[in-house]
Amino acid sequence: MLLKIYNIRLIIVNRRRQHLKFDGKKYHSIWYDRDKVYIIDQRSLPEKFVIEKIRTSKEMIAAITDMHLRGAPLIGVAGAYGTFFAYRESFSKPEPEEYYENMISKLRNCRPTAVNLSWGVQKIDGLIKMGLELDRVLAAVKTLERNEIECCKRIGANGVALIREIFNVTGRTVNIMTHCNAGWLATVNYGTASAPVFRARDEEINIHVWVSETRPRNQGGKLTAWEYFHENISHTVVSDSSCGHLMQNKMVDLVIVGADRIAKNGDTANKIGTYLKALAAKYNNIPFYIAAPVSTIDFSIKSGRDIPIEERDENELKYMNEAPLIHELSPALNYAFDITPAELITGFITEKGIFKPAELLRLTL
Amino acid sequence: MLLKIYNIRLIIVNRRRQHLKFDGKKYHSIWYDRDKVYIIDQRSLPEKFVIEKIRTSKEMIAAITDMHLRGAPLIGVAGAYGTFFAYRESFSKPEPEEYYENMISKLRNCRPTAVNLSWGVQKIDGLIKMGLELDRVLAAVKTLERNEIECCKRIGANGVALIREIFNVTGRTVNIMTHCNAGWLATVNYGTASAPVFRARDEEINIHVWVSETRPRNQGGKLTAWEYFHENISHTVVSDSSCGHLMQNKMVDLVIVGADRIAKNGDTANKIGTYLKALAAKYNNIPFYIAAPVSTIDFSIKSGRDIPIEERDENELKYMNEAPLIHELSPALNYAFDITPAELITGFITEKGIFKPAELLRLTL
Repeated sequence: MLLKIYNIRLIIVNRRRQHLKFDGKKYHSIWYDRDKVYIIDQRSLPEKFVIEKIRTSKEMIAAITDMHLRGAPLIGVAGAYGTFFAYRESFSKPEPEEYYENMISKLRNCRPTAVNLSWGVQKIDGLIKMGLELDRVLAAVKTLERNEIECCKRIGANGVALIREIFNVTGRTVNIMTHCNAGWLATVNYGTASAPVFRARDEEINIHVWVSETRPRNQGGKLTAWEYFHENISHTVVSDSSCGHLMQNKMVDLVIVGADRIAKNGDTANKIGTYLKALAAKYNNIPFYIAAPVSTIDFSIKSGRDIPIEERDENELKYMNEAPLIHELSPALNYAFDITPAELITGFITEKGIFKPAELLRLTL
Repeated sequence: MLLKIYNIRLIIVNRRRQHLKFDGKKYHSIWYDRDKVYIIDQRSLPEKFVIEKIRTSKEMIAAITDMHLRGAPLIGVAGAYGTFFAYRESFSKPEPEEYYENMISKLRNCRPTAVNLSWGVQKIDGLIKMGLELDRVLAAVKTLERNEIECCKRIGANGVALIREIFNVTGRTVNIMTHCNAGWLATVNYGTASAPVFRARDEEINIHVWVSETRPRNQGGKLTAWEYFHENISHTVVSDSSCGHLMQNKMVDLVIVGADRIAKNGDTANKIGTYLKALAAKYNNIPFYIAAPVSTIDFSIKSGRDIPIEERDENELKYMNEAPLIHELSPALNYAFDITPAELITGFITEKGIFKPAELLRLTL
């Protein structure tokens, strides 16, 4: 996937039921060029392909908070760029240190669940605190970005083995289930849960992916489906509620999802609904894997109980493009993530290999 | 709840964010007056309260198929009225018998999963085959309708004991989870899963209900929430995916859902997503009950494997009020029901009492 750079705000509207064309190019979900960061505004997909320019740490905080961009690995990189921006801006401020600390504190906290965000901020902040010059800081952010891509590529290489094995044994299409979007839009490129899928396609293994809608923001139905459509991955969108039925009826060989934070014991926070899929997989003896870079593991916390679960605005559930989806006068509650206990997880597909929950601690060595 | 009759097509639009007023009256979901059947067109709720007039078996078939009305017990009664209509129409047809058989066959098959529909048709068809006169047939349909109401009332009286017990033990608000709409809109009055809830309110037991949205048609978020709002039942709408998280965090004391068909062994077909809730309830040691009249039990089938699962149009998943919810060019699959195996069900709340799955066979005696 090539890195393409545009200085203009580019909007190409998809005419209803026609193929979405965005220049025939493939993009990274974030890139830096001439003092600015560019992102794909994911709120507009799949109807519109919008590239947004981000110039300041404040704009980055707004973009992360309002989910112009999302996905744990991506907001890790975005956090790193935001930290660089805050540092750059601080030189022209009357109280540079105070300004900088204030901005990175806001940045770190604008979404609580994914550990990658504070991890990305932390990494760059550490270098800044060591007294690195501005251009060296930027170089470090770009290295972190490249590493993120490399991790995803390796997750693909490691994870495809699981798919290949099923394909070799059964000789038929491998049915994979995923949830939310853990594709290239959620990372910088390749994706986490989607990386083995893309790799399987490249290796000409027959695959089909069940994409669950992922209410309330429909990242599955909107983003993953859009990605797979453009990447020629055979897929079908289903309601989140359908996933048990599909597993019960032997229509799923393997579940692979991403993660927002993994505790030391393997308990995993991911998009709300992941836990129900893990329960159905366990009950129906279907392997259930988490695909994530090691940077998503938070070795500072013992278990899932210590992971904060973000509660977002109830209107995300109530409206879609301003159309009411539920009774407007009723209260609604919108938890964005849930915790899947380690005992329901078959393994973790990381850039360093595939590990069982109990083996995660090895990665600290 | 009073029976009110209108001969005009009555439309009262709810102004956004204002209280919906429909004459301050309460309705049954179906009623007969002067040769016609009246129903509430449930597709328009909660935004509009529309009463629809149904004059022929053909109109009834369309109303059931396109879900102007839905809910297993209600479509049982609707099927009975449709059978009466087909019989009445047949007198003026050149080939009355052929016409009648053709119409009731269509009626019976317009929705495959709920057994109540074919049960309602069967009941009335049996009387017609016995040679009953038209007005006696109509009287029988009305009796069946009254019985349905009585069953729901008794389900409420039986089910409230479970809620009362939790309330007495804990002394705090009882948190009940439900799915889809099994309220008065799904029956003729009172509801199945909602009947114990309404009864608990009447008995001044503190309750709160988690209403899951119920994609793709959002009968939970649209219909159950609307019912509870107007019935002063404390409730909160959540995404279907949230239900595991709520149970894991001890925010649910009891799950009560309806049913579309119950096999002899207790396996139960209900709205897609019920199975996932049952799995989460089992895993978290939360009692999981099915509320349904005995007429929902299909003693002719051994297990859930024999229950046909309706697959509905993919556009139900793709669009809401014509707004796209998922990537339009991707294929989607829309299963309307799933099967919850008996081993996940704590008990069945029926008009004849509460039974464990293994005890259902007693009801045939």
